[in-house]
Formats: sequence, structure tokens, C-alpha cells
Amino acid sequence: MMRIAVVNCNTTESMTETAAARARLAVGPDTTVVAITPSWGVASAEGWYDSFISAAAVLHTLERLPSDIGGIVMAGFGEHGREGARELLDIPVVDITEASAHLAMLLGRRYGVVTTVRRAVGQIEDSLMSAGLLGHCAAIEDTGLGVLEIDADPLATADAFVAAGERAIARGAEVICLGCAGMAGLEEHVRDRLPVPVIDGVAAAAALVETLIRQRLTTSKLDSYARPLAKARRWPGADG
Amino acid sequence: MMRIAVVNCNTTESMTETAAARARLAVGPDTTVVAITPSWGVASAEGWYDSFISAAAVLHTLERLPSDIGGIVMAGFGEHGREGARELLDIPVVDITEASAHLAMLLGRRYGVVTTVRRAVGQIEDSLMSAGLLGHCAAIEDTGLGVLEIDADPLATADAFVAAGERAIARGAEVICLGCAGMAGLEEHVRDRLPVPVIDGVAAAAALVETLIRQRLTTSKLDSYARPLAKARRWPGADG
Amino acid sequence: MMRIAVVNCNTTESMTETAAARARLAVGPDTTVVAITPSWGVASAEGWYDSFISAAAVLHTLERLPSDIGGIVMAGFGEHGREGARELLDIPVVDITEASAHLAMLLGRRYGVVTTVRRAVGQIEDSLMSAGLLGHCAAIEDTGLGVLEIDADPLATADAFVAAGERAIARGAEVICLGCAGMAGLEEHVRDRLPVPVIDGVAAAAALVETLIRQRLTTSKLDSYARPLAKARRWPGADG
Amino acid sequence: MMRIAVVNCNTTESMTETAAARARLAVGPDTTVVAITPSWGVASAEGWYDSFISAAAVLHTLERLPSDIGGIVMAGFGEHGREGARELLDIPVVDITEASAHLAMLLGRRYGVVTTVRRAVGQIEDSLMSAGLLGHCAAIEDTGLGVLEIDADPLATADAFVAAGERAIARGAEVICLGCAGMAGLEEHVRDRLPVPVIDGVAAAAALVETLIRQRLTTSKLDSYARPLAKARRWPGADG
Amino acid sequence: MMRIAVVNCNTTESMTETAAARARLAVGPDTTVVAITPSWGVASAEGWYDSFISAAAVLHTLERLPSDIGGIVMAGFGEHGREGARELLDIPVVDITEASAHLAMLLGRRYGVVTTVRRAVGQIEDSLMSAGLLGHCAAIEDTGLGVLEIDADPLATADAFVAAGERAIARGAEVICLGCAGMAGLEEHVRDRLPVPVIDGVAAAAALVETLIRQRLTTSKLDSYARPLAKARRWPGADG
Amino acid sequence: MMRIAVVNCNTTESMTETAAARARLAVGPDTTVVAITPSWGVASAEGWYDSFISAAAVLHTLERLPSDIGGIVMAGFGEHGREGARELLDIPVVDITEASAHLAMLLGRRYGVVTTVRRAVGQIEDSLMSAGLLGHCAAIEDTGLGVLEIDADPLATADAFVAAGERAIARGAEVICLGCAGMAGLEEHVRDRLPVPVIDGVAAAAALVETLIRQRLTTSKLDSYARPLAKARRWPGADG
Repeated sequence: MMRIAVVNCNTTESMTETAAARARLAVGPDTTVVAITPSWGVASAEGWYDSFISAAAVLHTLERLPSDIGGIVMAGFGEHGREGARELLDIPVVDITEASAHLAMLLGRRYGVVTTVRRAVGQIEDSLMSAGLLGHCAAIEDTGLGVLEIDADPLATADAFVAAGERAIARGAEVICLGCAGMAGLEEHVRDRLPVPVIDGVAAAAALVETLIRQRLTTSKLDSYARPLAKARRWPGADG
Repeated sequence: MMRIAVVNCNTTESMTETAAARARLAVGPDTTVVAITPSWGVASAEGWYDSFISAAAVLHTLERLPSDIGGIVMAGFGEHGREGARELLDIPVVDITEASAHLAMLLGRRYGVVTTVRRAVGQIEDSLMSAGLLGHCAAIEDTGLGVLEIDADPLATADAFVAAGERAIARGAEVICLGCAGMAGLEEHVRDRLPVPVIDGVAAAAALVETLIRQRLTTSKLDSYARPLAKARRWPGADG
Repeated sequence: MMRIAVVNCNTTESMTETAAARARLAVGPDTTVVAITPSWGVASAEGWYDSFISAAAVLHTLERLPSDIGGIVMAGFGEHGREGARELLDIPVVDITEASAHLAMLLGRRYGVVTTVRRAVGQIEDSLMSAGLLGHCAAIEDTGLGVLEIDADPLATADAFVAAGERAIARGAEVICLGCAGMAGLEEHVRDRLPVPVIDGVAAAAALVETLIRQRLTTSKLDSYARPLAKARRWPGADG
Repeated sequence: MMRIAVVNCNTTESMTETAAARARLAVGPDTTVVAITPSWGVASAEGWYDSFISAAAVLHTLERLPSDIGGIVMAGFGEHGREGARELLDIPVVDITEASAHLAMLLGRRYGVVTTVRRAVGQIEDSLMSAGLLGHCAAIEDTGLGVLEIDADPLATADAFVAAGERAIARGAEVICLGCAGMAGLEEHVRDRLPVPVIDGVAAAAALVETLIRQRLTTSKLDSYARPLAKARRWPGADG
Repeated sequence: MMRIAVVNCNTTESMTETAAARARLAVGPDTTVVAITPSWGVASAEGWYDSFISAAAVLHTLERLPSDIGGIVMAGFGEHGREGARELLDIPVVDITEASAHLAMLLGRRYGVVTTVRRAVGQIEDSLMSAGLLGHCAAIEDTGLGVLEIDADPLATADAFVAAGERAIARGAEVICLGCAGMAGLEEHVRDRLPVPVIDGVAAAAALVETLIRQRLTTSKLDSYARPLAKARRWPGADG
Repeated sequence: MMRIAVVNCNTTESMTETAAARARLAVGPDTTVVAITPSWGVASAEGWYDSFISAAAVLHTLERLPSDIGGIVMAGFGEHGREGARELLDIPVVDITEASAHLAMLLGRRYGVVTTVRRAVGQIEDSLMSAGLLGHCAAIEDTGLGVLEIDADPLATADAFVAAGERAIARGAEVICLGCAGMAGLEEHVRDRLPVPVIDGVAAAAALVETLIRQRLTTSKLDSYARPLAKARRWPGADG
């Protein structure tokens, strides 16, 4: 029996549930998906300022991760933190940004990302670059919809997604990645409207974590992701 | 019930069996692994000349792939052909070179490859480059052992592998990939002797194919990997 | 007296003759150009599947290359196989893709390619990338005409070529390369209609091979292109 | 009268004072340097886990930045957060990692960095890469000394620094950057022992911030660094 | 008291005065800016031919640089020569192309350049590339106005600049650099019409030189920029 | 009848003769090679300062190029000026640095350069980079011998060359380029002592120029290398 945690980058529990539900569809029957929402941070992450707050909140949460969790999905598209989680934990950590790109690159010569707001584009580009996966990214397009707007009007979201997807395809994308954890499940609605595979990073990451656990592979503890050194670390207490 | 084919790049059936056996350990209980050996080609692929012959032999074989196969593992480390298979087939195709790098990149900041002979190094580099995965490759080292020598003396192979692995680690690798399909299973013997995760591309590719099939994802047929155009193609008949 | 072989990547003899005729215009009076057409393979190469079949067919043909040939022009734009030919032979091998880029780069700060069908674009990009020549390529545009259509309607071909050339120039190309062996000679018809030099890769490759032979330079046999190792290789016999 | 804040990435006040003192030497007589230490976070930042905690702590601190501060020096070598600070504030933000590279690149064809511990090397590389400055970095070497050890034994620190500097020079560095805020001032002790300029990022950043303020230049608010969107953000309260 | 020379790349004294005047606004009250115009060369530099003549003329001039000059601003946007000046002199040398990019990169994720004529675009790109700063350049746009036309009609110049700036912003620039020394001061006129910071390279370079002098930093004399070897060098005498 | 000029980058006539003699061996019987030595400049070019002086001297010389010259070889390895010559002239211009790399890349997967003094290494790297040919360069090694020392002791030169060549081969070079025009002819002496092809850039460039002329190809006059704009240009007269 395997337990995988899907850790939301933001504090909006409904989004964690959406992501966890999508992850459950992607793993085997013997795998349990646990939803974890940071207890502080940002309601949604749109930009670097939000991202760095969310990264710390997630790491804070991971300090008290139940010991029966076998792997982590970091559910924040383009958000920071995965390397810190890799240092902190001994179990595999996969972030949805890199996961969607890893799978997309097996299906087409170039892939694209459709995300929320324009300001997220540069951040996603940096995330893919530090993951070593930017070279095959043909385009990152935005829908103009904020993270918390994604659910508000499913029809408008699908329309905006398809339009942005078509722009990415015009720029060479042969696969499209959903550029926000909140879009998990959207691929079902847009699949028929785009001529390319559509990948949900939550599903991709959950499956990759499951694969790593099954193959008894986990983060290298040599050098970069070695356990954090012992030292004084203090989270904000009364002042906040 | 899912059926995945492990297709050897060379004609040495014992190597196909080794690879298929390793793939079986990596997939779920409902997945069957079928071993496919090209009926012509090269006994082992070491160099571009061999690689191009093997690519054609594999594509020739795939023209008559049983229709119940749901996905393909191309088992030739650094060998050519995967894009041709993606055009020819409608099912997912994953090559062991890219697969091992995709998983390695989730486990360490940089990865290395330990392969057979020196002449394979440039070819593997080119394969990773066209896969968009070379950026995080710190080193490709060779053991000096030919493909068909890998099995001959398991102790010598393990020793050579470990020595080459240490050289790769000294150059920044934090994860090591087995650089030859024939090395499948070797990770069990060297795991305790190297301070980093060791990844077998056959296992990685089998798991990735299984994941893609489960998520009902397959090759994009837009543009690059569209079905081959109808035309006259002729394989050698009597003259050979 | 020097003998250079122009080896077609496809089985369409009329195309081999077109290429060989163009090559003859590019070499000196003491050089003989021999046309070689593979006896099996693809009628035209458009895509990776075709390319890998053609590469094997060409290598098969080169195994029985007459011993008086002093150099090889591989006449397939974007097609695979040149590294295999370099291993197999001791004489210089130049492929028309790289040759056209090498000359183009001496004439303008950036160059472009105009090719046949859209699906060839990615393949040509990969060929230029592995040749180390992609950095100065501003654009690869397609005419929408298939390889075997190139000859069908010379006026339509020239018009499509000029339109695609203008698109490439708008994207920064200062030189245009003909992106298909079958276009050899077309430069004469479009020269007056484009404000940039137009380069035929067949002519470029023939001249480069001649230059290498004259300077007694041939492929390095150290490491990457060393002669193929002795081993069992088998071409398809009765089954095909 | 200009006021610049030097913001330490860690909570060790003595290090903030060291950095602020060094910054004072680098600015004009009309510029006041204010030292700011986050009230929570890490005692020293060595690795991504620490870095993400420090980034959030710094951003938290910057939320309450006095309104008379005209510019910010982020004093954490290789640490995260600068883009978040650029979104949050309307005043210039310069981080010591990029600052030292910017100046170094004016003095030599290639530069190197000498930092604290080995695990920081990859993180510094990523920081320089996202700053667009990695291309001219010939080497990042480590002294093996932790951040808080830098002050402990000045002679040992200088010796270790010089040895690492010589390794970087052997790899092509023509300028050396101090790879830790805590090394501020060390350049005075090693200057005579290395044949290249030695740059302190704190001094560099302070001077660059002063320059930007004088030229009435500040962060672009178009797109990437636009002000954070209004939303719910919550820092940890009682639980921590 | 510090003396900085602003050295024009061309022979048009009015442009040297414009640049020197702009530089004076950028330095402290104790710094004197000296204007130096080469006594031969080109009236304006537009293209490589002009650039190489100007580089030699500037180096010729620098051979007789007054000994009380503490630093050099090379005022030619995209023009050659800075590495030669770094070899020749022991004082810091900063060129306005790199200087504007260095400051721009602190203010936005990507920057753009607006220059004079189209033919300068490639040259500026090469200058930024050899400076290691091209990676964050989103766009180089031209106004279509020649170097000596910049002053002729200030309104037309501002309009052309703003239009080109908007094109650069549409391509991702978040900061704009004035792409010609003759544009120095133009930023005052276009500042209100573009939504991004506008940087004058003359001001940037003057401030950077001043910073380097203050920090007692100067060109590395190890390897690349070592003093020129003693040898026979002859400038044209009677024949010219 | 074709006339090609070999233009020395320096004023040492014996070197121009050496280069011209080598070029004569590389061209056909109907081609005449004319040796051109600038009338001013540097006795030898070692470093950027020398290079920019030599570039201007060469361009000055080319302003009065006889009208019967059909193509130019720029004989300065790593030296500047070729783009200026391409603007100035309507005939093909090939520089020996790029020429040797172009041919080398047809013979091996990676090439190396063996040059004179260490300080030339960075300059050669920049020249290859702006030529778009640096990607396949595995190594640039120096012999430690100055340009004018190359002829002094042929045995010592050959020994130093071979040692440096072996270092380049150890770093992955499969072809070696002579890194100085003055080394022309040296390949005959070292050929038997290195296991790889050795390429002389003078011979390579002469053959490439001849090829371009034969194919009636010349520099693109669109954009980058358009003819220089009409303007005042003045060479030094009495003052020098």
C-alpha cells in the first residue's frame, strides 16, 4: 500500500481537493492520495512574491509530513520549492511543472503550456529552465484568467484555454500542458477541441511519483539535495 | 489488460529477454510485456552505422506489430529510430535513453550515463540532445566493454561500471543511468557501491509507457509525428 | 582523375540524375560524378520513418561502393545517415544539408531554408543542430509541395519557393538554401526573384567533397567515426 | 539624502552589520545604509531549503519596509527572493549575486565565484543563470567552510579562499567574486594573494542601487514585476 | 577628484559633447568628465566597416590618453574596440552597449534596444553576445533614422523611438535601452510615452566607471586583457 | 581565369608569402593567388588591441583592392574584420578561422584548434562564436609560441604543436585546425605525428573562395552586409 501526498502550493482547500481527485485517477488501486493544504501562505500564487511565500509555507508543512507518506506531488505550476523539498525529505518529490513537460516531451517534438495570467509566463519559463526542460517548449500562452477564476465559469475557461492552446500550436506546440493545478480535469473538456494531446501535470506527477516509489528510486542525497545542515531555523511566531 | 512490447534494437535474442524480464518488474500485474527481436540487423549496435541499420530493422518489424500492443519500449541506448516509430504507430513510443534521463532528472540536479564503449559516447550525447535532455547531463563515461561483453563477466562488468560511475560523479553526476539495454538488472549489483541512485532505462521506459497508456495519452499526430505519407517503400528482397 | 558519387537518399532515379547533373556543374573538368540510387528504400523521404529507411538503404548501398570512388555526396536534405557513412568509408562524406549551410554562412549573417512539406521542418532543424550549424539559421519555411511534386509544375514550384523564401527573409534570412535535393537547379529560376543568394546543397556538397579530396583530407578515424566493429550484420533476405 | 537598506537573507545580526559596514564604504557621503535583519528564518542559508525559508522571511520583512528607504540590497549570495522583492516594491532591488557578476564582467573575459560549501555551488549557478549572467562564469569553487565559519578563523578563511580562487583561475576565471555576504571585506585580505580583481557583491550591489536611484531608474512594473495582485495572504501566527 | 573620459567612436564633435554632457549628469560632483573625439575615423558608425575603422581610431587616440584619466566610457553603441582598450590601459573601460544592458537587467526580466538603422541590429546583437548579455535581450528594433539624423528633428526622433519601443515591448522587453550614443538625453522626452524604464548607456557607463574607480577595481591583467606585447605597430603616415 | 587575394592581417611580408604559397597549392591551375600585405598595422596580431588595428589596416587596404580580384582570403586566425570586408566588397570574403572550422566539421564530430599564445585563445573562441561554429569546438590549446616565433625553430614548433594537439584530442577533438596563418604548411610536418586530420585555414579559405566564385555566389547585400553608407571617413594623414 502506497501513500502519496498532493501538496497544494496555495491555501485554497477546494483546489487541493480538485488536484487530489485528479491524482487519484492517475494512480493504481493500491495507492492512496492524501491532500495537504498549507495552513498559511497565499490563497493563490500568481507571481514570484506569491511563489516564494508559498514555497516557504509548503516547506513548513513538509517539516511535519506524516511518516507514512511515500512520495510528494508539489501542486503549483511554475511555483518554487521543489529543490527544498528534495533536501528536506528522503522520499521522491515531483512538481507538476516538470512532470507535465516530461510526459509531453514523449509525445511530440515540441510542447506548449497554457496558463492563467500573463505575469505567470516568465516564472513558468524559469521553472522549466531550471528543470532542464525549456529547450523543447515552443510557447507559453496565457488565458488571462486568474487562478481562482478558473473554476468560476467552466465554459469561459474552456473557451479561453482552447484559444490560447491554438496560439501555442501556431507557435509550434504539438502537445499542450495545463499550466495551473486548478486546471486539473480541464483536459477532459478541451480534448475534443484541440488537435493535440493535453496533459495535466497533477496526473503526470502522481504517476511519476508512483513509478519512482515502485522502482525504489528516490532523491539523490549526494551534494545538491543532501539533507539540510543542522542549524537554527525559526518560523514566525506571534508576529505575523 | 495492457500489452507492452519491448523491442530490441539488435538481433541478439538473449538481450531482448533480459530487457523484457527487467521491464516486467517495472509494470503492474495487469500488464504483459512482449519481447520483440528484429529478424535482421545488427547483433549489437555500437556506432552510427549499426544504429541506422538497427533503426530500419526495428521500423520494419514495427510495420507488422500485433494490433493488441498498446505501447512500445525502444530498447537501444543512444540508438536511432524513435521518431520514425512515433510516425508509424498510433500508440506511445518511449526509448530507453530518454526515459532514463527523464526519471534521473527528478532525482538529482545533474545526471550521468555509464555506457559500453567510447565510440557510443557521442551518439548518446546526440540522442539526449535531440530529446531536449542534454542540459542536465553532467557526464557520459564508458566502461570500455562492448555490448556483448556486458554479460560475459558480471564481476568485471560491475567493477568497470562502478569505476566509470565514480568518474561521472566526480564530474557532477548525482544520478547514474545505465547506458546500455544489456545492462538491465546491473543496478541491483552496483547500487551498494555507488552513493547515488542508478536508473535502468528499460524499467523507466516500461513504466512511462504504462503511465501514458493509463492516462490515455499517445503521440501527437499534428505535424512532426503525423502518419507517414502514402508512397512506395520497398525493403530488400532477394538481394541482400 | 577524381570520381565522386552522388548518392540519392531515395529510389527515384530521375531525382538522382537531376542531382548528379547539378553536381557535374559544380566540379572541375577532371572530376567525374557517378550517380548512385539505392536499390530499395523509399520513393521519396518525407519524415523520420522514411529517413531511417533511406539511411539504411544508403548504407547498404555504400557497403558495395566501387573502390575507385574518392568521395560521397549524400543527397537527402535533412535525411539521416551521414555519420554511418563516415564510419563505413575512408573517403570524405558530405551531406547536402550541412553543405548548403556551410556555404550560406560565408555569405550572410543568417540563412534560411526553403523545403518541401511542413513535416520536414523539424527534421531539417535536427539535422542542422547535430551538424552544429543551427545557430545561424533564421528560418526554415515550407512550400507545401511534396518531394515528388517539385518537378511536376516548375512555375508553381518557383512561385511557392519564392513565397516561402520571402517569409524566410522576413524572419532574418540573408541567404536561402534549397531544402530538397530535388530542387537542384531551381536556383537558376528563382535567383532573379529573391534579393539574396540561393544555394543548392548538391552543388555545395560536390564542391566540398572535391576540395577535401584535393587537400588529401578525409574523415577522422579517431573515436566517433572509427571503422565499424567487426560483428554479425544481416540485411533482410527472403522476408521483406 | 538617500537611504539604502541592506537586507540580510539570514537572521544572524552580526552578518548584517558586516554587510552594512561594507556597503557604507561603497556609497557616497550623502547615502545612509540601514541594516535590516529578518526577524525569523535561518541562522545561515546553505541550500535550497534554507533559501526558500529566507526568501519568505525577507519578503515578510519587506512588507513593512520604512517608506523612506530608496533602494534595497538583498544580501544572500545565491539565495532566492529578488523577483518577489521587485514585485512588492517600487524601489530598485539588487541582489549581491548578480551585482558581483555584473561588475566582474566589466573587468575580465570570464569570472569565477568562490563560495562557502559545495552544496551552494548548484544554487549559485541557478541564480546566475536566471539572472542571465552564467555564460561568462568560468567556475564556481567552494572553500568547504560554512557560512558561519567564515568569521571564525580569518587566516584559515583567507587561505581556503585563495586556494579555491586559484582553482577557479586555473579554470579560466580572470576575476573572482566573493560567494557569500559574510565574506564582505575579505577581499582586502586576499587581494595581494590573487593575481586578479576580487569583487564583493555587497559593495557592488550598494553602488548599483545608488546609481539606479541617482538616475531615477527603478523596477519596470510592466508584466513580470508588476505589483502583486490583491488577495488573501497569511503568515503563520501562533502555529510555527 | 576623479577624471573620466567619454570617448566618442566617431569624429562628430557635437555628438561627443552630447554624450559628455549626459555623462556629467550621471556622475558625482567630484568627478570631471572629459570629452575625447578621435582625430580620424568615421563621421558616424553604421555597420561593421565603420565599426572597425572607429575601433582603430579610438585605440589610436587612447595610446595618447592623458595620464590623469581614471576611467573610460566607450561611446559607440554596438561598436567594436572595448577589449583592445582593456588591454592597452590599466584603468577601467566600460562600453555603453554593455553598460545599458547591465543596468537594464536589474530592472526587468527582459530588455530591449531601440537603435538607429536596421543594419545596426546584427552588430548590436553580436556586441551583446560577446559581452555575455544577449540572453535577456528580448528585441532589438530600429527607428530607421541614421546616427546623424537623430538630432535633426527631435519630434520625429521621439515618435520613431516610441514606435520602435512599443514593438520591442510587444516582443517582451520590460526595459528599453537607447541604442545609440547620439540618443543620450532622449530618454527625458520619451519617458512619459513608454510604460517602461528607458536607459541611456552613456549615463550607465559613466556611473559604472565611477563605481569601479571608487571601489579601486580595474581590468584584470591576467590572460585575455594583459598588456599588449611589445612589437612593431605602425599607423598610417603620409599615405591615407 | 580567377584571381584570389590572400590578405595578411599583419605587416610581415614573409608571412603573407607563406600564406599565399599555401593558398596556391589549394586552388586550381586557372586560379592566380595574389599576396596583399597591409602597408601599416601590426607586425603580428596577438590580442584584441592588435586585432582591431589590423582590421582597420586590412579594410584600408581593401578600399584600393584591384578590380580584377574575384575573392578574398582574410589571413588572420581569430582576427577581426571579415564583416567589414563583406560590406565593403561585392566579392566573396572568407576568413581562415571560419574556413578551417567549416572543413573540420565535415571530418569529425568535434574539432580543436592549436594556436600561438594563450592570450589568443579567448579571441579565437569569440571569432568562432560569432561565426556560428563554436558548438563543435572541443578545445583551443596554445603552443606558447608567439606568431613570429612560429618560423624560428621548425622542430620546436612542430613539437609544441603536437603536444598541444594531443591535449586538444584528450579533450575530444577529432580534427585539429592550425590556429595561425603563419602555421600554414606545418600540417605536412605534424600529419604523421597526430592521429587526426590537420587543417590549414589558408588552404581551406582559398578553396572555399574559389568554390564560391565558381558557383557565382557572393555576399548577400541584404541588410547586414549591405554596402557601407556614403559618409565622411578619414584615415590618419600626417599625424600617426
